[in-house]
Amino acid sequence: MIDKLIDKIKKTNAPVVAGLDPMLSYVPQHILLKSYREFGETLQGAADAIWQFNKGIIDCIHDLIPAVKPQIAMYEQFGVPGMEAFQKTVDYCHEKDLVVIGDVKRGDIGSTSAAYATGHLGKAAVGSSRLSAFSEDFATVNPYLGSDGIQPFLDVCKEEKKGLFVLVKTSNPSSGEFQDRLVDGGRPLYEHVGEKVAEWGAQHMGSSYSYVGAVVGATYPQAGKIMRRLMPKTYILVPGYGAQGGKGADLVHYFNQDGLGAIVNSSRGIIAAYKQEQYAQFSPENYADASRQAVLDMIADIQEALAKAQA
Amino acid sequence: MIDKLIDKIKKTNAPVVAGLDPMLSYVPQHILLKSYREFGETLQGAADAIWQFNKGIIDCIHDLIPAVKPQIAMYEQFGVPGMEAFQKTVDYCHEKDLVVIGDVKRGDIGSTSAAYATGHLGKAAVGSSRLSAFSEDFATVNPYLGSDGIQPFLDVCKEEKKGLFVLVKTSNPSSGEFQDRLVDGGRPLYEHVGEKVAEWGAQHMGSSYSYVGAVVGATYPQAGKIMRRLMPKTYILVPGYGAQGGKGADLVHYFNQDGLGAIVNSSRGIIAAYKQEQYAQFSPENYADASRQAVLDMIADIQEALAKAQA
Repeated sequence: MIDKLIDKIKKTNAPVVAGLDPMLSYVPQHILLKSYREFGETLQGAADAIWQFNKGIIDCIHDLIPAVKPQIAMYEQFGVPGMEAFQKTVDYCHEKDLVVIGDVKRGDIGSTSAAYATGHLGKAAVGSSRLSAFSEDFATVNPYLGSDGIQPFLDVCKEEKKGLFVLVKTSNPSSGEFQDRLVDGGRPLYEHVGEKVAEWGAQHMGSSYSYVGAVVGATYPQAGKIMRRLMPKTYILVPGYGAQGGKGADLVHYFNQDGLGAIVNSSRGIIAAYKQEQYAQFSPENYADASRQAVLDMIADIQEALAKAQA
Repeated sequence: MIDKLIDKIKKTNAPVVAGLDPMLSYVPQHILLKSYREFGETLQGAADAIWQFNKGIIDCIHDLIPAVKPQIAMYEQFGVPGMEAFQKTVDYCHEKDLVVIGDVKRGDIGSTSAAYATGHLGKAAVGSSRLSAFSEDFATVNPYLGSDGIQPFLDVCKEEKKGLFVLVKTSNPSSGEFQDRLVDGGRPLYEHVGEKVAEWGAQHMGSSYSYVGAVVGATYPQAGKIMRRLMPKTYILVPGYGAQGGKGADLVHYFNQDGLGAIVNSSRGIIAAYKQEQYAQFSPENYADASRQAVLDMIADIQEALAKAQA
């Protein structure tokens, strides 16, 4: 799956992921009202609204980008109907041949991690059937519980040719509270986590990069530079572009000399583009066109930064 | 909610949580076949089987214990139908007046953590409605992302009078890989996390203990002793009893002098008791009676250990 992701990045020339993290406040009135009319102001109504919202955006941007990253929390908050909307979104993205990174940040131990891996990347054995559930291509995972929390995910990835992005250095302001703690007399914890990611990844290689990627936030470019060096064969998923403050120029050190090795996520900046001053020419009815323009602008920003860096 | 939990612990004299972590391999044939007959060997069939299995156990043990801890991964692996089974289980436990600890180990940043908190502990605003989704009483959360990952959970807990158990030192063999790293020249990372938990908890007090609890595994009694001292007002959720190797005698230092302060989880040891040699007198048809006996034995083991420690 890492090979497919890289292949699509090369074809689109866009190391970009659209984060499908829909909030009801992003959904234009005409969609909201239609869903509420059909299902009432219920969890089902909310779930339908975010699904319709997503569908509009996916239809408008799928040809530009290699991958999407639905954030499951935004669906889970609406309970079972929300999870149905998540499932529909994942399935629809597969139909459009997009690589789907499930931003689920799961992590547990032993058989429990195995169950998460099964539900998101693998197949559940039910009697003599083997059945996919949510069926993303990659999942984000939390490393706090150590190797035996990660191993069951690795096993499923190997079998299903799927991949992971392990949280290393997250983009939020307080990520340093534990991740930056200096460990064993020197380096921050996240470097140790990154080294583990490289070690896990070495056992699970695609043709040039590993199936096991890492999350390093755009808001910490210095960490990006260090981690790029420490994990040369690791794809880095970079959240925090746009709304969280990261810019293309900050991101060049997340990439390798081959122009690969990183994929940059933007969520609000893409899906709620029509609410930004920069895209005020788009009406709420044309929200998905605004998203398309935001994707084009983001691709141009990153391509320009990479070109400058290589010049 | 921490007050309700403590009240129920006192009434039952049982600082015990039953972990509802059903695997299909635990479900007796007569239940499996009935579910498969009705729904086929499908995700829905699997989800129905684990729900029926749970229901039998809950009916048989709800009067003995204060709380249950469904592990969401075991449901999530069966996709949307699995999440429905999770919801049914939570709802049914509420009907039986059990405190429900959602073992979800979620953790993200900002608005994403807020969405998880909404889905599991709070209410989603949909139009003019405010709607509960999964609606547990407590949730387990992962601290790796730091304070701004936890704060949205705290906000919801305050509003809804619900609680958290933050992962501090987990019960699995490799938990030390990151959690035991010596930080800033001395103490292991988990102690720093524990101090943060106490700090977060001080802002959210029930009448004697905080709404913000901690997870410290039974398999690390030395850590339990240290954390008990560092977090005197923090309730400790202790996984790892029974199947993972912890015994009552190992656990006395997780409790305070008042006999409170800890609640011990057993999952497999209770729900799959009928498969153990010790309970071989119970047939698969009487699996729930075996669970009841396992709960009684566990309560006796812990009470005896606490009585000895106080003698």
